[in-house]
Amino acid sequence: MNLELGFFPQGEIEERVERVPTGIIDPLLMGGIPKGSVVLLIGDPKSGKTTFITQFMYNQLIGGANVIGLLVDVSRYEFISNALDFGWGLMGYLNDKLHILDAYTQRLRGGPKFSFTEEVIPDIRDTSQVIDVIKDLTTKIILNNPHVDNPLIIGAVSSLTPLFFETEEKQIYKFLEDLKAFAHKNKQVWILEMNSGVEEPHVETIIKAIVDGIIEMKLFEEEKTLRRYLRVYGMRRTRHVLSWIPYEITESGIVLQNQNL
Amino acid sequence: MNLELGFFPQGEIEERVERVPTGIIDPLLMGGIPKGSVVLLIGDPKSGKTTFITQFMYNQLIGGANVIGLLVDVSRYEFISNALDFGWGLMGYLNDKLHILDAYTQRLRGGPKFSFTEEVIPDIRDTSQVIDVIKDLTTKIILNNPHVDNPLIIGAVSSLTPLFFETEEKQIYKFLEDLKAFAHKNKQVWILEMNSGVEEPHVETIIKAIVDGIIEMKLFEEEKTLRRYLRVYGMRRTRHVLSWIPYEITESGIVLQNQNL
Amino acid sequence: MNLELGFFPQGEIEERVERVPTGIIDPLLMGGIPKGSVVLLIGDPKSGKTTFITQFMYNQLIGGANVIGLLVDVSRYEFISNALDFGWGLMGYLNDKLHILDAYTQRLRGGPKFSFTEEVIPDIRDTSQVIDVIKDLTTKIILNNPHVDNPLIIGAVSSLTPLFFETEEKQIYKFLEDLKAFAHKNKQVWILEMNSGVEEPHVETIIKAIVDGIIEMKLFEEEKTLRRYLRVYGMRRTRHVLSWIPYEITESGIVLQNQNL
Amino acid sequence: MNLELGFFPQGEIEERVERVPTGIIDPLLMGGIPKGSVVLLIGDPKSGKTTFITQFMYNQLIGGANVIGLLVDVSRYEFISNALDFGWGLMGYLNDKLHILDAYTQRLRGGPKFSFTEEVIPDIRDTSQVIDVIKDLTTKIILNNPHVDNPLIIGAVSSLTPLFFETEEKQIYKFLEDLKAFAHKNKQVWILEMNSGVEEPHVETIIKAIVDGIIEMKLFEEEKTLRRYLRVYGMRRTRHVLSWIPYEITESGIVLQNQNL
Amino acid sequence: MNLELGFFPQGEIEERVERVPTGIIDPLLMGGIPKGSVVLLIGDPKSGKTTFITQFMYNQLIGGANVIGLLVDVSRYEFISNALDFGWGLMGYLNDKLHILDAYTQRLRGGPKFSFTEEVIPDIRDTSQVIDVIKDLTTKIILNNPHVDNPLIIGAVSSLTPLFFETEEKQIYKFLEDLKAFAHKNKQVWILEMNSGVEEPHVETIIKAIVDGIIEMKLFEEEKTLRRYLRVYGMRRTRHVLSWIPYEITESGIVLQNQNL
Amino acid sequence: MNLELGFFPQGEIEERVERVPTGIIDPLLMGGIPKGSVVLLIGDPKSGKTTFITQFMYNQLIGGANVIGLLVDVSRYEFISNALDFGWGLMGYLNDKLHILDAYTQRLRGGPKFSFTEEVIPDIRDTSQVIDVIKDLTTKIILNNPHVDNPLIIGAVSSLTPLFFETEEKQIYKFLEDLKAFAHKNKQVWILEMNSGVEEPHVETIIKAIVDGIIEMKLFEEEKTLRRYLRVYGMRRTRHVLSWIPYEITESGIVLQNQNL
Repeated sequence: MNLELGFFPQGEIEERVERVPTGIIDPLLMGGIPKGSVVLLIGDPKSGKTTFITQFMYNQLIGGANVIGLLVDVSRYEFISNALDFGWGLMGYLNDKLHILDAYTQRLRGGPKFSFTEEVIPDIRDTSQVIDVIKDLTTKIILNNPHVDNPLIIGAVSSLTPLFFETEEKQIYKFLEDLKAFAHKNKQVWILEMNSGVEEPHVETIIKAIVDGIIEMKLFEEEKTLRRYLRVYGMRRTRHVLSWIPYEITESGIVLQNQNL
Repeated sequence: MNLELGFFPQGEIEERVERVPTGIIDPLLMGGIPKGSVVLLIGDPKSGKTTFITQFMYNQLIGGANVIGLLVDVSRYEFISNALDFGWGLMGYLNDKLHILDAYTQRLRGGPKFSFTEEVIPDIRDTSQVIDVIKDLTTKIILNNPHVDNPLIIGAVSSLTPLFFETEEKQIYKFLEDLKAFAHKNKQVWILEMNSGVEEPHVETIIKAIVDGIIEMKLFEEEKTLRRYLRVYGMRRTRHVLSWIPYEITESGIVLQNQNL
Repeated sequence: MNLELGFFPQGEIEERVERVPTGIIDPLLMGGIPKGSVVLLIGDPKSGKTTFITQFMYNQLIGGANVIGLLVDVSRYEFISNALDFGWGLMGYLNDKLHILDAYTQRLRGGPKFSFTEEVIPDIRDTSQVIDVIKDLTTKIILNNPHVDNPLIIGAVSSLTPLFFETEEKQIYKFLEDLKAFAHKNKQVWILEMNSGVEEPHVETIIKAIVDGIIEMKLFEEEKTLRRYLRVYGMRRTRHVLSWIPYEITESGIVLQNQNL
Repeated sequence: MNLELGFFPQGEIEERVERVPTGIIDPLLMGGIPKGSVVLLIGDPKSGKTTFITQFMYNQLIGGANVIGLLVDVSRYEFISNALDFGWGLMGYLNDKLHILDAYTQRLRGGPKFSFTEEVIPDIRDTSQVIDVIKDLTTKIILNNPHVDNPLIIGAVSSLTPLFFETEEKQIYKFLEDLKAFAHKNKQVWILEMNSGVEEPHVETIIKAIVDGIIEMKLFEEEKTLRRYLRVYGMRRTRHVLSWIPYEITESGIVLQNQNL
Repeated sequence: MNLELGFFPQGEIEERVERVPTGIIDPLLMGGIPKGSVVLLIGDPKSGKTTFITQFMYNQLIGGANVIGLLVDVSRYEFISNALDFGWGLMGYLNDKLHILDAYTQRLRGGPKFSFTEEVIPDIRDTSQVIDVIKDLTTKIILNNPHVDNPLIIGAVSSLTPLFFETEEKQIYKFLEDLKAFAHKNKQVWILEMNSGVEEPHVETIIKAIVDGIIEMKLFEEEKTLRRYLRVYGMRRTRHVLSWIPYEITESGIVLQNQNL
Repeated sequence: MNLELGFFPQGEIEERVERVPTGIIDPLLMGGIPKGSVVLLIGDPKSGKTTFITQFMYNQLIGGANVIGLLVDVSRYEFISNALDFGWGLMGYLNDKLHILDAYTQRLRGGPKFSFTEEVIPDIRDTSQVIDVIKDLTTKIILNNPHVDNPLIIGAVSSLTPLFFETEEKQIYKFLEDLKAFAHKNKQVWILEMNSGVEEPHVETIIKAIVDGIIEMKLFEEEKTLRRYLRVYGMRRTRHVLSWIPYEITESGIVLQNQNL
């Protein structure tokens, strides 16, 4: 496989860009995702998207960052328990660096559309409220880190998919544009999980047009066997590899298979 | 054919995961389906899905498990009689380990929407009621097994397909999410039969995104002859073979044809 | 062409299954269609479906069976006259072993929606009425054969296609499920003719999922020439050949062309 | 090209069938179209369908038959004038053997929906009226030929296409079934011109299922050049060639190009 | 490339047909378009359709014909100015042989739906009015040419495409049928420009079925480069080349590239 | 790759056409875009469309032209900041040669639908208002350049895509026709960015039919790697290369990779 970077030799820009290492695909990205980016993680069912998100969150936590995890289609308990299967202990970071926003429980229960605790999103359809919660949490984190200048905040959404059943498409576009404006301003990195093939192609195209970066995970069928591939389709403000890279899901999470990286 | 496991060499996780052997495709699954899984069995008409389900149920019964069978498009009599064609005597387990929930009779007859016996589902469209019946039955089984710590309960639905004619898609998604939450909590394994090609592709994708595992059965046309193939498309918490495996339907049920397994 | 049976060597089941020889495709079916089956005969326009149906009916009559023929898109006169072109004299069996139900006349004439004779279906859209007529006729045949234990009754519908213009899809599915339940209980064999390509693919898939067996007739274009092929796509409770088999329409009806059969 | 007949060696049936020679494609049809047939002539725009129809009508007239021509998308004047370009003098047969029904003038003018002369169809949408006109004309022809036993009547429609803009599909199916019933009873041959690609595929399939015979005319693109091909897709009660046959439109009309015919 | 004519060697008909040379594609058309033809010029955006139309109009003017140009998506000024880029001086013919009907200005301005001058079409949606204007102009031209027997009148529409946004499809079909009837009667030649891919395929097919001739212009992608090709798909009453012919847009307009022509 | 120009050797027209050099793709365009052109820049998400637009605007500014930038999906701050990443200092031209029209802020905020400053478009859906703003700005620029005869004005829209969510298609066509009429009259060059795949193909075709020129940017997948290609699909009044040309996004913007250019 021919791995070419979409950008010419490293230089001034590349050096100026501040990056967040993912611990997973950094060789594809000149070291990491540029700060101030909203990244779409789109892929086939069972390709390992949630594993990627969890691994990314854990790597941020051990690196010292603050992490906001918005859970839409998985419970808080299960998310943490699944992470443990890979040896990623999220539990210890709760109430400290890790902030889980639970948008799952009320959605499943169809419960009251208001929240008793600040970490429960009562109604995921109200996307402007979600933006407000993210803003409040950002403020709180900054206040909790008085001695850190501009503390690094990483966000993850697992996953966008249920939003499409309950929310008008235009409202989702607006949510993404709002989140992007906020992330740019505060130099946050957000990774948003989404199933491919659930929405019509033009919807996927519009979302890809709005976000700053796109990571794709795909199961290719080759000679009657499925193989897992991952690609950085695009990423603003950085050079990146433009090829599909094979990967495995191992006991310690996602591992790229390309020897040259 | 190249059989690669999607997961690296066996280790700690694999050992920790408790498995339910299927007696059919265990070589593809490191020995069986992880406990606490909802598995979709999706395939072409006449590919042998109901045979798979029946064979799986019978294997659980002879292995000592409790089995709940929800019949939606086949009568109780015919299901048991068809099993006998393969030499699988389900009759002896009735009223003991085997619990047949009949959602077929009332659906076909258009009869009253309430049930005279606890084993008849009066209205399959009321999916929250189905969840309640499964919960009650689970409680009953646990009470009936006072000396067993957490008795193994296996569920099967044959098949989901008629639900799509009568129920809103979102309600089916909710049913699956509810069933998954319950199965995870109680470490049950459920296998849900569904015809491929009946629903629009995005509906199949969403269902594949919700469930924990996906087994596909397909008739490929090769040189003007149909051949049967089966594949584990994905399965949470376990390594598995990612290839299409040929199989036959023999007198003793489904038999994989690959020599290397 | 490689002719493999989808089932392993003959054994106990195969011996237990009672079969109705078709006189046309028996080498593909281990000798015939299992009693208690609803079989879909689906194919291209002008592929010879009605010829197949007529030939099958005639073969049953000379074999001594009772035959119910439900005519939806061809008149009673024309059906009998066309049969004569192939040398199949149906006339002599009328009012004895052959029972023609005429659903054509009233449909075309748009006449009164009640019937003056018991052999005219006044309104084909009322599928539950059709089921009732079939039940009544079954009872009558049994009463007329007091000395025969469980007289063999064969049914044929030529064709289902007009039903789709006038009847809701769900009602057709219900009709097929009802007919299947009745045919299983009374060990009748029904063959239902249907044009492929008239309904959306998912409708064909659902119908294929409901019936017990599927026979396909197709015109393949090979090197700018059409060639006729026939296949048993699936058949419950029997082994069968899974290949496309070339056939000709000769003076004595449909003849398979494969030398090895 | 391999020309195989879809039927086995000539025999009893073939001899019994009465045929109408077309003068165009008889080598493909064992000599002609069986009497009592409704034949669909379907093809691409500009493939020569109207030329075929006109040539067929002219050949019938010089052979002594009575011809009914129903003109829907061409004026009476232009139809006759175009025929003359090929040297086919229809004029002399008017008011004698040739009966032109003009469904064009009123359709284009949007004029009054009643007719001043019996040869003008005031409203083509009223298909049952069209059937009535054909019946009346048939009676008149029989009365005019008191010394001929069962005079041969040939019909042609040029073309069905505008009907689809103004008439419900089901009504067109009914028109075709009525026309077929009438043509069978009176041993008439009707050729109906229709553009392919104007209706959805399933509509074409249903029409192909209703008619007795199908002739297709097609422009294939081969190496950036269009080539004209014609095929008998199906024809009841006769053997026929199943291959695409190249043809040219010459000064004397359509001429098949295959040397072996 | 193999250039075959769809018609056999020249003879009587060909000699009788009166032709209008196009000055562009005459080698493909036995010398020109038969008088009394409505010709569709259909093609990709930017393939040069308007250039073809303008070149054709200019060639008619220098040949002495009267030309009616109906401008729908280009202003009068720009049309004339663009022609000048190719050295075609239309200006001198205005108010004499060249009659520009401006359907652009009012359409763009949304102005009053009546016209102050006879050369402005106030509302292009009123297609019967357009026919009336063409008839009036024809009468006027004949009156202005008292000494010429049946003066040649050529029409061009640039382009039909905007009609489809504002007019019901059936009305457009009627407009074309009316224009065809009028052109046939008066032996006029009309060329109608239309973008391919703007309407659904069946609409293009119907329009192709109505018109007398079809010229296609297409950009093929060959080895990552676009190449321009032109084809006469069909033309009533004349032999014509059936191949795609490459062309260039040069300083003097469209030039066919085939050496053999 | 074979680079052929769609036009014959340079001559009179080419010399007469006034051109605006792009600084990016001039070798493909005989030196630049003809004055008085509306050009569509259509392409895949993340292909670099906004980079192209920005680079083009900067090149115009350093060349002395006046530039109008209509920002629809990016904020004024971010647009200028992103330009700086490539070393393009737009800031210095603000309030002088560069006129940014902000249609982003009010769209995102859903703010009041009137504007406090002349450089904010309160409601992008009101496309006739946008045309008015462009006209006013044009007048203002002309008044500000009293000593320049017909000052060069370049426009850019980044991007059209959000218009399609909020505006009826016909209104967008009208906007483009109005903008084209204005640009032609005033010899302005406008480049309009648009995502491909967001609208149905026929909408893209219509837009391509309206504009004067089309530049396409595309990511091709070759051997599992994405490669960037750019093409001039069409451009009125000039010869141009018709091939896909590979390009890179480097530190100094878009650079064509073809050696021969």
